[in-house]
Amino acid sequence: MAIPGFEPTSMSLVAELIGTAVFAASGASAAVGKRLDLFGVVVIGTLCALGGGAVRDILIDAKPLVLTDWRYPLVAVLASLVVFRFHPALSRMRPTMLVLDAAGLALFTVVGTLKGLDYGFAVYAACIVGVLSGIGGGILRDVLVQEIPAVLREDFYAMAAVIGAIIVAVGARWESQIGHWTLMMIAIATIFVVRMVAIRYRWQAPKPNI
Amino acid sequence: MAIPGFEPTSMSLVAELIGTAVFAASGASAAVGKRLDLFGVVVIGTLCALGGGAVRDILIDAKPLVLTDWRYPLVAVLASLVVFRFHPALSRMRPTMLVLDAAGLALFTVVGTLKGLDYGFAVYAACIVGVLSGIGGGILRDVLVQEIPAVLREDFYAMAAVIGAIIVAVGARWESQIGHWTLMMIAIATIFVVRMVAIRYRWQAPKPNI
Amino acid sequence: MAIPGFEPTSMSLVAELIGTAVFAASGASAAVGKRLDLFGVVVIGTLCALGGGAVRDILIDAKPLVLTDWRYPLVAVLASLVVFRFHPALSRMRPTMLVLDAAGLALFTVVGTLKGLDYGFAVYAACIVGVLSGIGGGILRDVLVQEIPAVLREDFYAMAAVIGAIIVAVGARWESQIGHWTLMMIAIATIFVVRMVAIRYRWQAPKPNI
Repeated sequence: MAIPGFEPTSMSLVAELIGTAVFAASGASAAVGKRLDLFGVVVIGTLCALGGGAVRDILIDAKPLVLTDWRYPLVAVLASLVVFRFHPALSRMRPTMLVLDAAGLALFTVVGTLKGLDYGFAVYAACIVGVLSGIGGGILRDVLVQEIPAVLREDFYAMAAVIGAIIVAVGARWESQIGHWTLMMIAIATIFVVRMVAIRYRWQAPKPNI
Repeated sequence: MAIPGFEPTSMSLVAELIGTAVFAASGASAAVGKRLDLFGVVVIGTLCALGGGAVRDILIDAKPLVLTDWRYPLVAVLASLVVFRFHPALSRMRPTMLVLDAAGLALFTVVGTLKGLDYGFAVYAACIVGVLSGIGGGILRDVLVQEIPAVLREDFYAMAAVIGAIIVAVGARWESQIGHWTLMMIAIATIFVVRMVAIRYRWQAPKPNI
Repeated sequence: MAIPGFEPTSMSLVAELIGTAVFAASGASAAVGKRLDLFGVVVIGTLCALGGGAVRDILIDAKPLVLTDWRYPLVAVLASLVVFRFHPALSRMRPTMLVLDAAGLALFTVVGTLKGLDYGFAVYAACIVGVLSGIGGGILRDVLVQEIPAVLREDFYAMAAVIGAIIVAVGARWESQIGHWTLMMIAIATIFVVRMVAIRYRWQAPKPNI
């Protein structure tokens, strides 16, 4: 993604690394809950953090970011180790984790959607790629620890990502007027707020009537 | 796939879209059975419909069809929504669903095998690609809803696909004599009939003696 | 991988085919244990044998080996059939299977790491690719038969692969002094010995304190 100027780039990098750490922590927590050992915790944490981006890069035929920038796997492994060591303290931070996870979802979805557009895919395709970036890692985590993926049960998780992806993919047509960063911030904030409000008010998506 | 002439192309497209709808309905039904909510039903339906093709395109290094033709995801989402809304009526249609699923398996396997050949892979490799196209979506569906994939338990599901893939991949050598559409129809009909007969007479594949 | 000279190449090929057979047998055994039928046993055996390499090739954007060399799927299918037919005899061979599985892990990890380097990836990235080659098939097997992947629970399985991958990826810088085959042998032997010792002395990785 060609982003001019130094500061925005490092801002984007920092944001993505935070998202990576948060998703690694969420994977590692799930692995601790299943009583896996040190390696299991690190592997699941890392896959959860990097899996969504890997799926994205494979679909758009980009070089997987995890294989070209060592900072992503490093951060993922470190975050997993921190959870392994300090998880009882961390589990008291569950509300904090939910907030960070929502931030990670927002960041990964928006960055993924923009990468899809950059690779020349149509608006709808970029949205699919972006949403998969955001939710892919968590799906991988849940499949590995033998749970039905939370994203399929938790209301307004995937939906928040879908809304944000549409905002950024459609808005990109007027990017020159809106500005790259304004657009990103609007989409990230929307996903984050929808997700937070959905948690706070326990929004329920409709269930099938059986 | 370069298919000359308008009518066959649109016939092929219609056939593939029907296959997509049928597989989406089968995924959505499984999700409804697990009491997932609206989003879960749509996500699993869509993955079931498009997952096999995505695996195929990733293996042969083609642009994923789902990202280049919006009709596939649209049909998948719509079919999932229909199941979500009308599933009690649909569940009374289970025999119909089995027939449609066999048709979807036949279509996806044959189209996938031909695409493998078009991308220059050997006969055996095109068969692998074709079979994975046919059964990949169902495997994904079952992994996500935490079942051992039906294709591994249900007799003569994968085997019907294997037979059809071999017919089309081997027959392609004499395509100029047989004709593209005749060959496709023979292979599709074979998969469909084998699958139907296997269901009707409850053909059992051998089990390991323990 | 351009390996000059006939003998080493065929040695490498034989080694890889043995690894393929062993992993197929391990997948087929798991499937027999779940009472799957003939096709289920063959499919899981084959995916277990070829899945790790496929993940590797997709990540580094190589043509999947399974689609370009028919010997790999052939060996995988044959090994699965042998297990299906003779598994009661094989189950008495469990210690032998553990030894062969350790050999397969060692081979696949080292070959995968070297392939990653050959495709121009950094040392750390080649290690990730190599470890995924070694453990990917087993993860796929366990996900399909609905178990939490053994590699996440069994101590010093993934870790043995990580150690060997690091040896070969770092050592490759001095390959001209050490020699290609010496380096491979050292790394393969290390993984194998670590794994064997870990089994023998029941090494335990630390568990999270809950």
